[in-house]
Amino acid sequence: MKKLVLTGAAGRLGSYLREPMSRMCDELVSTDLAQDIGKLYDGERYVKADLASLDAMIDLLQGADMVVHFGAYGDEAPFETILGPNIIGAYNIWEAAWRNGVRRVVYASSIHAVGMHPKTDFIGTDVRHRPDTFYGLAKCFAEDLASLYWDKRQVESVCMRILSCAQVGNPRAIGTWLSYDDLIKLVQRAIDTPVTGFAVVYGVSDNDRVPVDNAKASFLGYRPRDNAEQFAEKIFAEAGPLDHQDPGNMCHGGPFAAVPLGDSGLAVLKVVDDTKKT
Amino acid sequence: MKKLVLTGAAGRLGSYLREPMSRMCDELVSTDLAQDIGKLYDGERYVKADLASLDAMIDLLQGADMVVHFGAYGDEAPFETILGPNIIGAYNIWEAAWRNGVRRVVYASSIHAVGMHPKTDFIGTDVRHRPDTFYGLAKCFAEDLASLYWDKRQVESVCMRILSCAQVGNPRAIGTWLSYDDLIKLVQRAIDTPVTGFAVVYGVSDNDRVPVDNAKASFLGYRPRDNAEQFAEKIFAEAGPLDHQDPGNMCHGGPFAAVPLGDSGLAVLKVVDDTKKT
Amino acid sequence: MKKLVLTGAAGRLGSYLREPMSRMCDELVSTDLAQDIGKLYDGERYVKADLASLDAMIDLLQGADMVVHFGAYGDEAPFETILGPNIIGAYNIWEAAWRNGVRRVVYASSIHAVGMHPKTDFIGTDVRHRPDTFYGLAKCFAEDLASLYWDKRQVESVCMRILSCAQVGNPRAIGTWLSYDDLIKLVQRAIDTPVTGFAVVYGVSDNDRVPVDNAKASFLGYRPRDNAEQFAEKIFAEAGPLDHQDPGNMCHGGPFAAVPLGDSGLAVLKVVDDTKKT
Amino acid sequence: MKKLVLTGAAGRLGSYLREPMSRMCDELVSTDLAQDIGKLYDGERYVKADLASLDAMIDLLQGADMVVHFGAYGDEAPFETILGPNIIGAYNIWEAAWRNGVRRVVYASSIHAVGMHPKTDFIGTDVRHRPDTFYGLAKCFAEDLASLYWDKRQVESVCMRILSCAQVGNPRAIGTWLSYDDLIKLVQRAIDTPVTGFAVVYGVSDNDRVPVDNAKASFLGYRPRDNAEQFAEKIFAEAGPLDHQDPGNMCHGGPFAAVPLGDSGLAVLKVVDDTKKT
Amino acid sequence: MKKLVLTGAAGRLGSYLREPMSRMCDELVSTDLAQDIGKLYDGERYVKADLASLDAMIDLLQGADMVVHFGAYGDEAPFETILGPNIIGAYNIWEAAWRNGVRRVVYASSIHAVGMHPKTDFIGTDVRHRPDTFYGLAKCFAEDLASLYWDKRQVESVCMRILSCAQVGNPRAIGTWLSYDDLIKLVQRAIDTPVTGFAVVYGVSDNDRVPVDNAKASFLGYRPRDNAEQFAEKIFAEAGPLDHQDPGNMCHGGPFAAVPLGDSGLAVLKVVDDTKKT
Amino acid sequence: MKKLVLTGAAGRLGSYLREPMSRMCDELVSTDLAQDIGKLYDGERYVKADLASLDAMIDLLQGADMVVHFGAYGDEAPFETILGPNIIGAYNIWEAAWRNGVRRVVYASSIHAVGMHPKTDFIGTDVRHRPDTFYGLAKCFAEDLASLYWDKRQVESVCMRILSCAQVGNPRAIGTWLSYDDLIKLVQRAIDTPVTGFAVVYGVSDNDRVPVDNAKASFLGYRPRDNAEQFAEKIFAEAGPLDHQDPGNMCHGGPFAAVPLGDSGLAVLKVVDDTKKT
Repeated sequence: MKKLVLTGAAGRLGSYLREPMSRMCDELVSTDLAQDIGKLYDGERYVKADLASLDAMIDLLQGADMVVHFGAYGDEAPFETILGPNIIGAYNIWEAAWRNGVRRVVYASSIHAVGMHPKTDFIGTDVRHRPDTFYGLAKCFAEDLASLYWDKRQVESVCMRILSCAQVGNPRAIGTWLSYDDLIKLVQRAIDTPVTGFAVVYGVSDNDRVPVDNAKASFLGYRPRDNAEQFAEKIFAEAGPLDHQDPGNMCHGGPFAAVPLGDSGLAVLKVVDDTKKT
Repeated sequence: MKKLVLTGAAGRLGSYLREPMSRMCDELVSTDLAQDIGKLYDGERYVKADLASLDAMIDLLQGADMVVHFGAYGDEAPFETILGPNIIGAYNIWEAAWRNGVRRVVYASSIHAVGMHPKTDFIGTDVRHRPDTFYGLAKCFAEDLASLYWDKRQVESVCMRILSCAQVGNPRAIGTWLSYDDLIKLVQRAIDTPVTGFAVVYGVSDNDRVPVDNAKASFLGYRPRDNAEQFAEKIFAEAGPLDHQDPGNMCHGGPFAAVPLGDSGLAVLKVVDDTKKT
Repeated sequence: MKKLVLTGAAGRLGSYLREPMSRMCDELVSTDLAQDIGKLYDGERYVKADLASLDAMIDLLQGADMVVHFGAYGDEAPFETILGPNIIGAYNIWEAAWRNGVRRVVYASSIHAVGMHPKTDFIGTDVRHRPDTFYGLAKCFAEDLASLYWDKRQVESVCMRILSCAQVGNPRAIGTWLSYDDLIKLVQRAIDTPVTGFAVVYGVSDNDRVPVDNAKASFLGYRPRDNAEQFAEKIFAEAGPLDHQDPGNMCHGGPFAAVPLGDSGLAVLKVVDDTKKT
Repeated sequence: MKKLVLTGAAGRLGSYLREPMSRMCDELVSTDLAQDIGKLYDGERYVKADLASLDAMIDLLQGADMVVHFGAYGDEAPFETILGPNIIGAYNIWEAAWRNGVRRVVYASSIHAVGMHPKTDFIGTDVRHRPDTFYGLAKCFAEDLASLYWDKRQVESVCMRILSCAQVGNPRAIGTWLSYDDLIKLVQRAIDTPVTGFAVVYGVSDNDRVPVDNAKASFLGYRPRDNAEQFAEKIFAEAGPLDHQDPGNMCHGGPFAAVPLGDSGLAVLKVVDDTKKT
Repeated sequence: MKKLVLTGAAGRLGSYLREPMSRMCDELVSTDLAQDIGKLYDGERYVKADLASLDAMIDLLQGADMVVHFGAYGDEAPFETILGPNIIGAYNIWEAAWRNGVRRVVYASSIHAVGMHPKTDFIGTDVRHRPDTFYGLAKCFAEDLASLYWDKRQVESVCMRILSCAQVGNPRAIGTWLSYDDLIKLVQRAIDTPVTGFAVVYGVSDNDRVPVDNAKASFLGYRPRDNAEQFAEKIFAEAGPLDHQDPGNMCHGGPFAAVPLGDSGLAVLKVVDDTKKT
Repeated sequence: MKKLVLTGAAGRLGSYLREPMSRMCDELVSTDLAQDIGKLYDGERYVKADLASLDAMIDLLQGADMVVHFGAYGDEAPFETILGPNIIGAYNIWEAAWRNGVRRVVYASSIHAVGMHPKTDFIGTDVRHRPDTFYGLAKCFAEDLASLYWDKRQVESVCMRILSCAQVGNPRAIGTWLSYDDLIKLVQRAIDTPVTGFAVVYGVSDNDRVPVDNAKASFLGYRPRDNAEQFAEKIFAEAGPLDHQDPGNMCHGGPFAAVPLGDSGLAVLKVVDDTKKT
């Protein structure tokens, strides 16, 4: 692998990926809206660029083998806020990839593309789209875009539907946790699998209570190692009984399934956490 | 039914729907970009308005029971062309519907949302999205939007995936034809079914060679009456043998499955027709 | 066919079946709790008997080729009311059939065995049980009993899940109606099919809006002829818009899906009708 | 269509196909092992040839557009008897087709390729092979051969799994009958469908009690018109009750499911008929 | 968890659960028909009570968070014997739970609810009911009851279909064994999972030859640790070849699939063992 | 186990099986076309015999408990080459097994029976046949033969679809590798499982990237231990990027999916290897 591009490099997950990705290639181009992202790793170069500009993306992806696309507005928000970075931005990435002959887009999709499915359904990677927010709707859009670019233009894509890549802080995360180590492993497999076509895989650790089914993505070889069960007893005790009529507890999307469209889902999540601690 | 709104009323299919829809309600508000649409039917009113304006759509849908949404750029085109009317326009319709308490959106989706599936697959209404063009991609987006507005805001939707609503002029249409009478019947059922939630149904006549499966939409009661088989012998004879390695012949999307992304699919279709007539 | 037994012969549906069934066999034994059932048809004999008595059922079924079992408490009621006639009574019928070498039980099961499935699911005959009432629960029990007696004792059963065999009086019935003629045809096929093993079939007419799928019961050859669509316009107009959050409108079981457990579902249905007429 | 080849032209079904097929093309080459087949139809030519000879088949198929392959040993028999005409003969046909650039093989497959499936399973065209005889095993072989020649050599095939194309003479045939008119229609569709790839379709009339599912072959447009239900009452009355533990009554293959491997299934069928008439 | 109730506490499996369950809550109420159950664990209280009495069950469940329901007649028996404890008793438990606001019933269902499915089918938790005995029929009834109380009254249930929770003593158990440790783990997960709705899970250890599929119950987080493969060589050697036409060897229910209805299945099992040792 | 027969004992895989199989029984009869196979193991006897001779196979299998059938032409070749050993030879084995009352045939089937399925489909053991070569076609034939002999003659079969049992030498093998230890374990389970009926299982190690699904064969208890992931980094680095339009990279059959029918697939494989090493 000569050149990889990482979008969203200043974000929480992007930050974690920079170092391991710098070791997977000769040249890593990290990009984001930030002015700079601090100290660079060996082989890493930072380019400030806006996803909303197709020209900027075309420049950025020149000569790249693959692009790992984590850049997006990272929370539920009004449609107008999502439209630019998450919808038009996605188009710009795939279009720029195709124009540059980039082989594959590795994409940070999300459980929120299918978040309104009941949690008691063990959903596979081919379940129908059922977004829980405008944020999730944009993920659906990008997945369909990826399907289109494979079928019509032979650009490969691996859409990683990440569940909860953050510290385990609530009962849902006992099943949905994706550890940082497993995230890195997942990205690695999305990159090193020789042929992927258009593929979808859930980004989740090997939790006892994993609520989604990666069987159909088996050829990617993603085998997570971490397990959030270690946190279960403490988290469950703190949380107390949950309301079984609340979509936030009954749907795969968790708090995003309950938040009003356009409102911050992370804020809701925070409130839950705060309450819990009192 | 007191008030219905019809978007795309100046378009080919919209024009056919005006008269029957005017008889289904007290007041029909027809809208499009055209300055006027000629003589109005009893109870019909015309309002020139741009789908790309949320404010205009909010005004338009005030007091409506349902909106029948046929307004869109009606061919494959560069993404930039599709984005405004077909993607942002769709958002504007569902958002305006919700703000006005409109019960249901009846939507002209398209086979092109799933056009890259092989024609030998008898695809149901729950098959995964597999768009064949930017045009089809926008249909996928609107369907996911409809799913979201049902799950989160209780706006109902019937997404009618129309196959080929035009004169039968090529071998594919022997299976994919939707007659105007059947189109009207379909729209009627999408309106009169008491409860629909989020529903998807293929818009196709009762052709012997129908390639898609409406079983799961049975509760809508759409039973077409016309059959393109009457045209088969003549059309097949004119067309001669077809290339079985051409995606245009092997995929549900037909010519759209073969056209380069962003190029006019209708133009391609025309070329085929012209060739045939020589 | 020498001898058939009909239970529930004094009930609404049983009454309709007496005459046609009397023509399908040399001897028809009709039975119910009533003292008498009026004038008998050629070849018909009436025996008052209680389903709750195994001995009585054993006597009744002597020498019978098949039993058509419509006897039951015919409405939702407290479990204690259902237990005798619908649960113990079912056991008595299958046990008596087996002891007498009766070949087959033709059973009046009900949509209420699966009534909590969403109406937008086109449920097949093999969908999992999901009763909506104690009444439906007893139907589930009898179906499982039928499965057991086939697998272990080679007694055949045809479980006819009847939807709405009554005058069309509400919007749901436009999809769920079973006309009396089609009921008779269904019973006839359940009797004349040479080999059935354990079979399940929905009892519903050829309504445009039929919400259930009989494909897997195709070998029984049940092809209904009537269609409730003729009543749709009038019924829909009278009913006005329906609440799409009400389980009574959203589930296959209709009013039974909404009625509190143990309360009369028919009473609820009546109230709906009355309201409608005001 | 310029030239069609029909194998097995002297057989019972082949004889029926000669006249209609002669009208579908400029030149029909009929072939079989017989010395002659009597009076020829307009455009028909007869060539005596042995399926077991690859060279003969290569000669025969020169310049053909399609071959309709009905030639085979037409009953269950020892494997040694089946091997030549039904297995090696099948290879010879597809190989000869490929070498001559013949577009498609229309093949008389049989229900006996899947005859051990229980009759109460409504089997689709993609159910796994489950032959009931060596005769059926050879049909499985030819279907897999057809799949291979499509995937690797782009020779199209339509495998028509014929159920019972003969006078209705026993209870099973009430569900499995294929009338001669419907057979002709089926062959016509297998020929005139523009693109088929590798396709499987059941050859059965529109019987009320049809036990197999052609949904996935919908794009072929085969819609039968005849219905064996007209014979049901008489046939059932003559046959009397059937043994529900006999594979001949419980499996799709009928008598072939019960006959010992290698014994004549048609003889068994005859015995059944004779017994019945006494 | 403040208060748990355990029914069947004097039974074989109940006895094993008392100690671990006493550690999962402040107060454990154990109940059975026995006069006493010996020494109690910390926090445990014993109440003699009859499942057949609704009043007794209502008293017993007052203030309970959950009830773990293992009380039942524990073998195949005539229907009259099963009816009271296993059918009416089940009703009493769910009804008492609902009246007391108990959140969840954790239920000892059984493989015998689906025991007539062929062992070579890898059955999931949503396979249709197919009981092998009256004992299994009562399990089907209770599962349907659980479904009903969730859909209509929001009482949650986890139905644990236990395979063989006993010393490994025959070839079937190499696949069906549930160790006591895994039983305890399963009950623990059925209790601690925050939200379950209506759920079904197979109770079986991590045997190499496990014949059932728990994938759809993944969210419960049940991951067994024991494996009966350690006993395979010895058990297989002792047993010798098995009859592959015997339902006891071919069906999931094992000996219960072969025992005549109403006869003791455990007795049959014993006979098999005894024979084996001679 | 008193007597086992191993065909193809001089072949690559057969050679590996002789020693472990000699320890599974009192008497192992190894057979092949070679004059001798060198030093024999305890209890082993070698018999030179031709699969193409039914008489020889009948002699060979006398008194055998089971036969492990690995004998075949082991590469793609013209149909005429495959016909004798792989098709007629298979018939001879099953027929000889039946005539001798042999309980079970353990058969070396192959991924090439389903090799044209796309690699991104996680195919189960019940996926439809889709051979990639004449070699694979013969495997399909033998599997159908096995199905027939079980359904009609109660001869059991375990069809082991081996993926790549050879040194890991190309990117495909990272997913498809079957180690020799796992092969032995698989054969052992195919022999020691008490009742198998007709079963299909994929022969593949516990590779991270395993592309096929053995869930439905769970009752056989085959749990592989080896994992080719250890070789991934080196093999991928050597191979460089793969063409994602090449069937050899996109289909389960690998090089056999790309080789012209009748040409040696192993030769193609070799060329690939050689190229790689330069």
